[in-house]
Amino acid sequence: VDSMGFMLTTENSVDATGCRFLRALLPSDLAGRSKGGQAQNGSVDVLDLLQGWGSGVGTYDDFNTIDWVREKSKDRDRHREISRKRRQSITALLLSVSDAFSGWLLMLLIGLMSGALAGGIDIAAHWLTDLKEGVCLNGFWFNHEHCCWNSKETTFQERHRCPQWKSWAELTVGVTEGASAYVVNYLMYVIWALLFSFLAVFLVRAFAPYACGSGIPEIKTILSGFIIRGYLGKWTLVIKTITLVLAVASGLSLGKEGPLVHVACCCGNIFCHLFTKYRKNEAKRREVLSAASAVGVSVAFGAPIGGVLFSLEEVSYYFPLKTLWRSFFAALVAAFTLRSINPFGNSRLVLFYVEFHTPWHLLELFPFVLLGIFGGLWGALFIRANIAWCRRRKATRLGRYPVLEVAVVSLATAVLAFPNDYTRMSGSELISELFNDCSLLDSSKLCDYGPLAKGGEPAGNLSEGTVGQAERPAGPGVYTAVWQLAMALLFKMAITVVTFGMKVPSGLFIPSMAVGAVAGRLLGIGMEQLAYYHHDWDMFHGWCSPGAHCITPGLYAMLGAAACLGGVTRMTVSLVVIMFELTGGLEYIVPLMAAVMTSKWVADALGREGIYEAHIRLNGYPFLEPKEEFVHKTLATDVMRPRRSDPPLSVVTQDGMTVEELEGLISDTSYSGFPVVVSPESHRLVGFVLRRDLVISIDNARRCQEGIVGVSRVIFTEHTPVEAQGAPPPLNLRAILDLSPLAITDHTPMEITVDIFRKLGLRQCLVTQNGRLLGIITKKDILKHMAQMANRDPDSILFN
Amino acid sequence: VDSMGFMLTTENSVDATGCRFLRALLPSDLAGRSKGGQAQNGSVDVLDLLQGWGSGVGTYDDFNTIDWVREKSKDRDRHREISRKRRQSITALLLSVSDAFSGWLLMLLIGLMSGALAGGIDIAAHWLTDLKEGVCLNGFWFNHEHCCWNSKETTFQERHRCPQWKSWAELTVGVTEGASAYVVNYLMYVIWALLFSFLAVFLVRAFAPYACGSGIPEIKTILSGFIIRGYLGKWTLVIKTITLVLAVASGLSLGKEGPLVHVACCCGNIFCHLFTKYRKNEAKRREVLSAASAVGVSVAFGAPIGGVLFSLEEVSYYFPLKTLWRSFFAALVAAFTLRSINPFGNSRLVLFYVEFHTPWHLLELFPFVLLGIFGGLWGALFIRANIAWCRRRKATRLGRYPVLEVAVVSLATAVLAFPNDYTRMSGSELISELFNDCSLLDSSKLCDYGPLAKGGEPAGNLSEGTVGQAERPAGPGVYTAVWQLAMALLFKMAITVVTFGMKVPSGLFIPSMAVGAVAGRLLGIGMEQLAYYHHDWDMFHGWCSPGAHCITPGLYAMLGAAACLGGVTRMTVSLVVIMFELTGGLEYIVPLMAAVMTSKWVADALGREGIYEAHIRLNGYPFLEPKEEFVHKTLATDVMRPRRSDPPLSVVTQDGMTVEELEGLISDTSYSGFPVVVSPESHRLVGFVLRRDLVISIDNARRCQEGIVGVSRVIFTEHTPVEAQGAPPPLNLRAILDLSPLAITDHTPMEITVDIFRKLGLRQCLVTQNGRLLGIITKKDILKHMAQMANRDPDSILFN
Repeated sequence: VDSMGFMLTTENSVDATGCRFLRALLPSDLAGRSKGGQAQNGSVDVLDLLQGWGSGVGTYDDFNTIDWVREKSKDRDRHREISRKRRQSITALLLSVSDAFSGWLLMLLIGLMSGALAGGIDIAAHWLTDLKEGVCLNGFWFNHEHCCWNSKETTFQERHRCPQWKSWAELTVGVTEGASAYVVNYLMYVIWALLFSFLAVFLVRAFAPYACGSGIPEIKTILSGFIIRGYLGKWTLVIKTITLVLAVASGLSLGKEGPLVHVACCCGNIFCHLFTKYRKNEAKRREVLSAASAVGVSVAFGAPIGGVLFSLEEVSYYFPLKTLWRSFFAALVAAFTLRSINPFGNSRLVLFYVEFHTPWHLLELFPFVLLGIFGGLWGALFIRANIAWCRRRKATRLGRYPVLEVAVVSLATAVLAFPNDYTRMSGSELISELFNDCSLLDSSKLCDYGPLAKGGEPAGNLSEGTVGQAERPAGPGVYTAVWQLAMALLFKMAITVVTFGMKVPSGLFIPSMAVGAVAGRLLGIGMEQLAYYHHDWDMFHGWCSPGAHCITPGLYAMLGAAACLGGVTRMTVSLVVIMFELTGGLEYIVPLMAAVMTSKWVADALGREGIYEAHIRLNGYPFLEPKEEFVHKTLATDVMRPRRSDPPLSVVTQDGMTVEELEGLISDTSYSGFPVVVSPESHRLVGFVLRRDLVISIDNARRCQEGIVGVSRVIFTEHTPVEAQGAPPPLNLRAILDLSPLAITDHTPMEITVDIFRKLGLRQCLVTQNGRLLGIITKKDILKHMAQMANRDPDSILFN
Repeated sequence: VDSMGFMLTTENSVDATGCRFLRALLPSDLAGRSKGGQAQNGSVDVLDLLQGWGSGVGTYDDFNTIDWVREKSKDRDRHREISRKRRQSITALLLSVSDAFSGWLLMLLIGLMSGALAGGIDIAAHWLTDLKEGVCLNGFWFNHEHCCWNSKETTFQERHRCPQWKSWAELTVGVTEGASAYVVNYLMYVIWALLFSFLAVFLVRAFAPYACGSGIPEIKTILSGFIIRGYLGKWTLVIKTITLVLAVASGLSLGKEGPLVHVACCCGNIFCHLFTKYRKNEAKRREVLSAASAVGVSVAFGAPIGGVLFSLEEVSYYFPLKTLWRSFFAALVAAFTLRSINPFGNSRLVLFYVEFHTPWHLLELFPFVLLGIFGGLWGALFIRANIAWCRRRKATRLGRYPVLEVAVVSLATAVLAFPNDYTRMSGSELISELFNDCSLLDSSKLCDYGPLAKGGEPAGNLSEGTVGQAERPAGPGVYTAVWQLAMALLFKMAITVVTFGMKVPSGLFIPSMAVGAVAGRLLGIGMEQLAYYHHDWDMFHGWCSPGAHCITPGLYAMLGAAACLGGVTRMTVSLVVIMFELTGGLEYIVPLMAAVMTSKWVADALGREGIYEAHIRLNGYPFLEPKEEFVHKTLATDVMRPRRSDPPLSVVTQDGMTVEELEGLISDTSYSGFPVVVSPESHRLVGFVLRRDLVISIDNARRCQEGIVGVSRVIFTEHTPVEAQGAPPPLNLRAILDLSPLAITDHTPMEITVDIFRKLGLRQCLVTQNGRLLGIITKKDILKHMAQMANRDPDSILFN
């Protein structure tokens, strides 16, 4: 009751200097309240009042780590306040209900917005991609497919030809075939690609530098409790959406999946501002962002369950079950929004819809595992090469000309990609074509098989449903396709290394999957031809008789794609589930698991980090990897500050320091907080006070509170002692004192300490020895120590 | 190097009294080592050696809570040891590789075994269920379906009729129809049901009392770190498998899904004994059990992904990502094992395969939400009624006659169930029939629709594919079915309340789903007829024209089943995913989510606990619910022992107590551990010692170590002080001292304390005030406090 009346009387007392709620801090009040037995519980309420000042107590600086424990406490206080008021009036009851449902409303908004944006990006990218080839006479805003949609001249076989669609050569020199047409089309392709990529990099540089890259490393860091202001802001959202379309359309070897996660997280962050509950609480906001990253993958692949598992496995740091359920809801809303926009024109939720009809044979596990090994090797090598290239970019003059870099890479990509059909098409088209079974793609070169030569039914007798289903020899089209695919493989492998990390939005999913799909399809065709020509071999005997259809090259492509993606990102469950949602058949989960598992093992043996962790380390973000166990046998005393040779720990005593002394301590040191002890001799821990809070409180007190001068005593105790006559009144700052700092003993093994930091989300932890305060360990100390230990000889694990 | 040589020299020194490794504990050795600077790190090694004694240091008593931190440290030590040795020889390298893969091997074994057991249970239960009706003349071990499988006289329409299969009436009185046949069949049905249920309860009582119930509450408790010896043992496995078959076949209103989780966990626990890594470590073993519970659901529903999410959401306590991936693997292996056994004879993985062809309309969300409300109400009421009944069983004489109880309930079930077709069939058959669309079930009463009366095409013109697809008026069969279903609903609702909790294996999934499916089907038929007779109403206008098929009663049944299961168990994501895996269509996820979400909200509003949590509380297991937030504003000081009026905290001083004094302390108190302090005056914390370790060590020392008498000093310091001439040698027990106990301050809010206990899996935590040891909080204190706070008036949240 006390604290309530308190709030009501002070609620409207704002004065010109911003010293609202001043009385809340007057020590006499605090002392008075503590007599009423409320002081223990009252400290947090006063912290709330302090925030009312707008003074910034309880907020964070840019590039700082949040304190999960404090944020969660704040949220529980808010929640308690609401449920207490609920009984008092109907309005408050309605408010409390709306508060309870605001999380769901937020999810709905994020789902709708992200789904709509993803649909828009798909449509725009498709249109711009086609613009590189030609233009629609019915309206330049139609893409190739829409242009020919209603044309009467279009047959099913040649559904991409219609008189309304003109290639650039047709429009300018008036011919569709021949050398001059080729040259004109080539030139236009390169010019458009250059234009798009230049626009993309220009917009990023000029308006939102944070819009480049995939964004997943930064989002992982943010979710682990780091603050990067503006990274998820509205400018980033706008620019990333536009430049993502341009970057994809430019034909660079990049995908839109990673950036879509960033876009969804921007939506989440922006919508958070609508609800006080999420706007003011960094921990609650991170729950929303976790759900938003699930939404991103959900719309990227049309895989809601896979998206939620991706968020759980790959991105999120703190993922309570409540968030799981909400993420799932948001992911579904987004997927259905995307489907009602129907950007692919096929009413399908999924990017690559695949349907296979042939079961796989146990012996095929061998090539599947081979694909896994290829994926793991490629993943590990890609990460090394890409990180080396990014380091070089940072270290040399290359990094100073990002626009030029993009232009050069884009020029090279366009010039090299155009002559080859499989590189000229976009990454997702390529994957889609490689995944598909031949019965659906008769017009493709990949399906140019010869007639059935020996055994089986003659080709003419095959009914419609089984055309292409029986094993047949490869025709000339397939041979051409194989050569082109091999060239495309080499090209994609090389160009992706230099593309990822440029100053344009760039995702890795599609390029990695493309590499794997090409490799897989090649292996699949090889296996198929082997089975056709050597069906009498022991290994094919019994399950691959002549005339039967026993090898599905599309399945190999899918497994290759999964293996390569797994090697690069080290995803496991979520990757398998995403692929399962693409195919919809439980039958292919076992091959998928075999390929993904092999790929992960091989890649892990060559280098422990996935691409996102590698980029986090490259950029030096303070990220405490939740997956990796700390294996070294050091103790807290080996990590804590101060070291043996350092000056002693800077502490604040609970009642012995003046304002001046504290200001001196603040200006002499750069620590972000100070332990408060009973006395310098006993070193018995009372609490912990944050530098930022201390600075703001002292400033405020000097400005607003009468009688606070340099020699005023600063008190952190419950009861304010009576000062000698004539002395200035003391300043009681118990309100900003964290009375529950976590302390561990100096003998605590670091493995346990790291665990505590991870699970509780600490910023710092105090170290005691036999009950005396000895030092402090911060998250940065731990990261530094982990890096040191990783660099040492692993033999020394037991002997340091 | 020191500790290594140490191990090698003492490795073979076992003597007759079991005092192996005695030297390891001689204080002189310890002192010598500490001079070498190894003592800090050496303590854990010595702990390992202590275990070599077989003395039980580091193990747990029955019905005790494990210390997650210590278990995980032990595993990391083991791991370090292996990776250190790896460099020394080829054998060690192979050992280390086999150690790394042992987890996967274990998962494979669990998957194979659980899949095989589940298949066996399915087949046996199917056979015994049919035995209640009749017997196969070709061999009594054939069930009805197999018996008629190859019979030439069987037509597709009447595929369940063949001369080889004789009902009991046919065999005994020689007639198939008429009153006498009905009476004989009725009698035989009741007799078999009684026999099966009596056998089940007899076996459970006689051989494995732990085999009763669903097992999920106990598994949740075990996974949270509790020890119940024998609960997952081989006897429980054997008896549970057999009695589960009998219980299911007896026709009692119970399912096999929950018990299958228990069976899979038993498999997991038994296979753990094959691998030292898992046998000796309670934390590692719980990772395996988490995976095993995923396997259980995977084989129960043929839903591997749903099973993994079930384990994550519902059962597991500590679920690292590594376990997620392994669970997934095990769940898949189990699902494929089950499929290759093919117990349902349809090559399907899933128990209820459903395929719907009609999309749902947005307006249908209204009845779907109604089903959700029904499910929530039923769930909450069921939990209350069941818990009240179980309490009455415990409190009254009823609990003393479990066999009689089972016999009576079984008799009542059989007598009431036989006359009604829908209760006579087994629960899963019922659900399967209710889920299915009419086009697949033409012979069923549920599909006895009349001819198309008005509008649309005449019935005769309908082609094969669309028979039953257009809305038609209900025929007499449907009316009969509706009445029977209504009776079945009431019967199932009542009988399930008294069945769950009896001393036979009993799962809740199938009965809950059956209730929901019946209710859903009834609503679905109602909606369908409404749409048929009133298709001109505004609400049907536009999407439900005459002659079209717009309402799928099977979908309603499925949603009802999901809603009721959700209401009872409060599952969310995993339930939706399990249902999604049954239907395989993303289209039905939105209705599913709507129904499940409504059900959860309604049920949560009426009572916060799910059935498993309610049973955990009923049985008084020490389970710290990870999902529920602690909302009260108390501080650690309000919870810790000793209370203000209690005698002071019992502590051990690090060098001031004798063996006798310690033995006195141990016999005077019943605490499971004691804090060790520097001196009784300063109360500065040094470490924590467990009662069990202390008892065992003192006993061992008295037995094996020369010169240890009652007045010997017990020392916990690093350096053993030199005793006065003539005094007995001191006993140094630093090896059993936990040097890194976690301490919090007395001002720490309980919400944070509860969080720390949950996330770190603590057993106890020490409380300090200004650096002095003040008290201790154990997991039981926290549970007691939470129960107290929950019972208080919620208005008092802020004012206590």
